[in-house]
Amino acid sequence: MRRVAIIGAAMTKFGELWERGFRDLVVEAGIKALENANVHGADLQAGYIGTMASGRLVGQEHIGALIADYMGLNPLPITRVEGACASGALALRQGYMDVASGMHDIVVVGGVEKMTDLDIAQVSDILGGAGDQEWELFLGATFPGLYALMARRHMYEYGTTEEMLAAAAVKNHKHGAKNKFAQYQKEISMEEVLNSKRIADPLKVFDCSPITDGAAAVVLAPLDIAKKYTEKPVEIVTTAQASDTIALHNRKTLTGLRATQVAAKKAFERAQLKPSDIQVAEVHDCFTIAEIMAIEDLGFFPKGQGGPATLEGKTGFGGDVVVNTSGGLKSCGHPVGATGVKQAVEITWQLRGEATGRQVKDAEIGLTHNVGGSGATAVVNIYRKGW
Amino acid sequence: MRRVAIIGAAMTKFGELWERGFRDLVVEAGIKALENANVHGADLQAGYIGTMASGRLVGQEHIGALIADYMGLNPLPITRVEGACASGALALRQGYMDVASGMHDIVVVGGVEKMTDLDIAQVSDILGGAGDQEWELFLGATFPGLYALMARRHMYEYGTTEEMLAAAAVKNHKHGAKNKFAQYQKEISMEEVLNSKRIADPLKVFDCSPITDGAAAVVLAPLDIAKKYTEKPVEIVTTAQASDTIALHNRKTLTGLRATQVAAKKAFERAQLKPSDIQVAEVHDCFTIAEIMAIEDLGFFPKGQGGPATLEGKTGFGGDVVVNTSGGLKSCGHPVGATGVKQAVEITWQLRGEATGRQVKDAEIGLTHNVGGSGATAVVNIYRKGW
Repeated sequence: MRRVAIIGAAMTKFGELWERGFRDLVVEAGIKALENANVHGADLQAGYIGTMASGRLVGQEHIGALIADYMGLNPLPITRVEGACASGALALRQGYMDVASGMHDIVVVGGVEKMTDLDIAQVSDILGGAGDQEWELFLGATFPGLYALMARRHMYEYGTTEEMLAAAAVKNHKHGAKNKFAQYQKEISMEEVLNSKRIADPLKVFDCSPITDGAAAVVLAPLDIAKKYTEKPVEIVTTAQASDTIALHNRKTLTGLRATQVAAKKAFERAQLKPSDIQVAEVHDCFTIAEIMAIEDLGFFPKGQGGPATLEGKTGFGGDVVVNTSGGLKSCGHPVGATGVKQAVEITWQLRGEATGRQVKDAEIGLTHNVGGSGATAVVNIYRKGW
Repeated sequence: MRRVAIIGAAMTKFGELWERGFRDLVVEAGIKALENANVHGADLQAGYIGTMASGRLVGQEHIGALIADYMGLNPLPITRVEGACASGALALRQGYMDVASGMHDIVVVGGVEKMTDLDIAQVSDILGGAGDQEWELFLGATFPGLYALMARRHMYEYGTTEEMLAAAAVKNHKHGAKNKFAQYQKEISMEEVLNSKRIADPLKVFDCSPITDGAAAVVLAPLDIAKKYTEKPVEIVTTAQASDTIALHNRKTLTGLRATQVAAKKAFERAQLKPSDIQVAEVHDCFTIAEIMAIEDLGFFPKGQGGPATLEGKTGFGGDVVVNTSGGLKSCGHPVGATGVKQAVEITWQLRGEATGRQVKDAEIGLTHNVGGSGATAVVNIYRKGW
């Protein structure tokens, strides 16, 4: 396999972008990524796009072709990849394999979701398609409800408290306040989180990531020619993906995501690295409990210690691994299909030293962790400086 | 790149399968393909699944994970790939790149669609998501309408007649009558086609492929170890994909699909083969005009000669290239996401000599051609005996 690098990275502002359409969001991110990579459209040989539910959210499938058209890139082959909220990381993974295989050299990978043009009940129903439609959603389960079950069990087994959950949101808003692309560039206090409206007990509204519009893109090339395009290529050292049961009731445990654990183990083995080598990580905090479980499942902390570690600030600046410098899904926002690519964009900026205002000093190795649904898919990617 | 082979192939019966669900269709095809490949689930390292619109058709996204679960394959990574009606061929292409890259050895690729649980108006609206939602479907265009525009122009420029279109349907039903997996195992006459109800003039109901439920699957392995599993591995010599504008009104011509032309050119170049080397082909006859254009765009016949060639029987048994031995989309049926994989299954059977009742004698080299929407995506794959 050839070694693969990110040579360009960009994203749109994330937020409730009512004046923007699906098409121009993805075009903006794509063009900015090409500019950042010093690549012309004519240099591209293939593309991948992650989106979860464009069919239901904007009535449009076949968005690979749509994007090739709207970016003026026909007859470029662009393929859509979907794995619910992990669609972005899966698109990146396919782009990685494409370049690694030798099939193509210069490949663009995007992620996009346009979510705010429908009302919240419709969006909630559509997002339900990431879980088990027949055995969960049809019977009334919602995603806050599913993650609340995990939170409640984590609290029961490990003594995790609502304050520990809230600490993840407070930290991520602190980071997001420094990210000009974030949906919420505003700090929040522990009291605000704890006093916010209960959505699915013990999760409150400030434990939940928002509904977001946005897009992100990266450009990939073989590492050995990446320096032709950029002085600071970021190598994708490896990518690992795993699955778990689509429904929660079939799992042996609710206090962690087996898909994350398996993918992380594979990723670290392939990269010949260990969790303590990671200095900066973007993890999938669709709910605060998801971040607590992620930092345990990824091996940053022992099972049950994610809550105390978060409350003690071990995942913030000054900690051994700084988690969600972008603001995470909670503060930067969660345009579902874009999230996995945005995570790669943030890690690229961190390793290049371009994360102004939220830079992890001397970051050399980073990780992204993107989850689909309630954990039926997880993708773990590891990155390092390629120069 | 490593050379890649199909070591197992299977499909469900195609048809209006009201007693079957999305989940068991794909499980049936997957398990049969594994059995055919002499592979256990535990041998699999990754999977890909093509489906166009499971979100809107059955309320379920995230079907990669769903399938891993329902096939008992967790934590196997399975990824959904979508490119409208070309979703199946795109899934196969990603599986090909995965094995070619050296990432994984044994990979399963499936395609599925469950379409008959909604009424026809809903399905027609959902299929519209394969075209340009904002500039075509929102304004009332349907897929029969879009292809009727192409048919009308092809008739105007080349003198193609309704009889020539009908001849494709008659031939494909003749082939499908010999395929026990086909939706319509019944011959139809030229008169029946010409006298059938007009849907979008000049296309009549028997010029159109049907709404279908079904699934298909293949198992891939590196060619150099394929003989461990099967005596008759079928090599995927190459795969090529191209895009065109999503809307018809932006194209320079309506009498051919540029995406097919570009993908075919690339595929033949990479394979170092020419159209006359192909003995058996499955092409995308979503409408009869689509088959006429396909056999021209693929280079089997000069532009404008597809109609006369079809009427003269040059694409049936006894012709230089036998087209759509499965019955094609017209007679075998068109469960959208499954079609591209079914095409690969049919070519596998043809090259192995297993296409009972419809075997092309001594077939050595085959081709599949899968189109998304009205031609904004095309995928051309070439196969040959790998033993």
